Amino acid sequence: MSAPTVLALSGGVGGAKLALGLMHTLPPENLTVVANTGDDFTHLGLRICPDIDTVVYTLSDLADKDRGWGRAGESWNFMAALGRLGGEDWFNLGDGDMAMHVFRTQALAEGRTLSEVTAEIAETLGIGPRILPMTDETVATVVESANGDLPFQHYFVRDRCEPAVTGFRFTGIADAKANAEMMTLINGSHLDSIVVTPSNPFVSIDPILSLPGVRDALNAQTSPIIAVSPIVGGQAIKGPAAKMMAELGLPSTALAVAEHYRGLIDGIVIDEVDNEQAEDIAALGMEVRVAQTVMRTLEDRKDLARICCAFATEIGS
Amino acid sequence: MSAPTVLALSGGVGGAKLALGLMHTLPPENLTVVANTGDDFTHLGLRICPDIDTVVYTLSDLADKDRGWGRAGESWNFMAALGRLGGEDWFNLGDGDMAMHVFRTQALAEGRTLSEVTAEIAETLGIGPRILPMTDETVATVVESANGDLPFQHYFVRDRCEPAVTGFRFTGIADAKANAEMMTLINGSHLDSIVVTPSNPFVSIDPILSLPGVRDALNAQTSPIIAVSPIVGGQAIKGPAAKMMAELGLPSTALAVAEHYRGLIDGIVIDEVDNEQAEDIAALGMEVRVAQTVMRTLEDRKDLARICCAFATEIGS
Repeated sequence: MSAPTVLALSGGVGGAKLALGLMHTLPPENLTVVANTGDDFTHLGLRICPDIDTVVYTLSDLADKDRGWGRAGESWNFMAALGRLGGEDWFNLGDGDMAMHVFRTQALAEGRTLSEVTAEIAETLGIGPRILPMTDETVATVVESANGDLPFQHYFVRDRCEPAVTGFRFTGIADAKANAEMMTLINGSHLDSIVVTPSNPFVSIDPILSLPGVRDALNAQTSPIIAVSPIVGGQAIKGPAAKMMAELGLPSTALAVAEHYRGLIDGIVIDEVDNEQAEDIAALGMEVRVAQTVMRTLEDRKDLARICCAFATEIGS
Repeated sequence: MSAPTVLALSGGVGGAKLALGLMHTLPPENLTVVANTGDDFTHLGLRICPDIDTVVYTLSDLADKDRGWGRAGESWNFMAALGRLGGEDWFNLGDGDMAMHVFRTQALAEGRTLSEVTAEIAETLGIGPRILPMTDETVATVVESANGDLPFQHYFVRDRCEPAVTGFRFTGIADAKANAEMMTLINGSHLDSIVVTPSNPFVSIDPILSLPGVRDALNAQTSPIIAVSPIVGGQAIKGPAAKMMAELGLPSTALAVAEHYRGLIDGIVIDEVDNEQAEDIAALGMEVRVAQTVMRTLEDRKDLARICCAFATEIGS
């Protein structure tokens, strides 16, 4: 049996970890990773795309594995000097990381698309799989909160996810065109599965799903769509997903994640610690796979990737 | 006798050294340093002003005194990462130095003038004297060479001053407005002297002098104008001045510098090693002061500053 062809929908850290596992499991031409761009923003005149960069750094082995974002072996002299000049220093930009933002900002200013510059960077860094921004247009996630509307990075970084969220919206999404290469893949006949990675459902995956035509195309195609729950034992592995769910009046459970994706996905991988939710999730009308989903090591990432591929194959057969 | 009020015209390293000496010699409110902006360029989407930055770093004690440009204790991870991405890496930008370019580029994009952002940076860094860009408009020094026309930094950095120069021009200068604060000083009655620092006469000082109205205003005002020769013993202390003079068919001598400034300056400070040229320079119709002009230490800088002030006082009395 030949290797399956997979489309992965990804946010930052959790998605990138599974994408790395998939990269080690599949031939490069069989994997395409679509990155959320709703977190992108223009800061200090630079176009910053945190999820694309986390995927790029992770797949090129440049990522800082402990910190969870940015580059390994990073230095911070730019930020220190900027602070001394009185510049905005609430969003940490490493010295090496700055190269990405400056390179991309210049390329965009010269008229290249985000897809083009992302492909160029990935190729230069020797990344095999395709990395696609969800769109080349500007979409900006706005966090609706008790403190009013907050641009995503102000909520996420500056305010350390402290404001209680009441909802989300994605400015510009109605006019944004979903990545053409992603749509060709979804609408084509080569995909064996679509994997919704364990990134934040509300601010990492929903922006991708909310692009015009994406949800309809996903529903119309026939390969299995599986998700991996980012909620394990009532907690998010990383980030504010569990806190957001509580603030939105949802239980912080794998079941609630499954309900969030109901109607889209054919199956969900949940963690062993959430085994007792499997029956209720199955009752929603989807397949459930229970596995060890916490990805501490590269082997964990590869194991989870193989589990996802096998799970999708079973569902599709 | 109260301290004199001095206007210094400066390029990069040599000018900044003398400006530092003047800063240590005069009350801050008595010193204004005008920096050449003909070397400025937009690179990687960033507005880079090498002479302003050298003056700022020197007067705030952030400069790398050995290397002669940029910041002390600098790191280079941005450049390394940019090179890895395939970005243009012929112009070295230190990690801390990047803060200056990003901060300024953003301020200019927001509509502030180069004068405003330079004043803001100088104040934030605690620099007492005023630092003025020669103009807020874009003026770009073009080096005419055997290899054709070269933007200044391509000649200076990328091509390491190797092409033989045939001339210079300052694109945009006819439409540029000389710094208003500089013109007010020149046209007013508070200046005790104007010091042409030992920067490159052709590419550091001439752009300032070539701005519309500057030379006329300098000629019309009555305080002494003195220069310090950047050529010592037939060599430039730093940079391509001597090489340029040879290529332009001029002797690389203090006398040739004096001839270059003839009609503008009232006196020139030359180095002790060029003592035998004093008579010929005096014959040009200007005063000559022979001194130790090579500024190795802070004491050297202060000594030369005091010599310049005393020389101007003598001429003016």
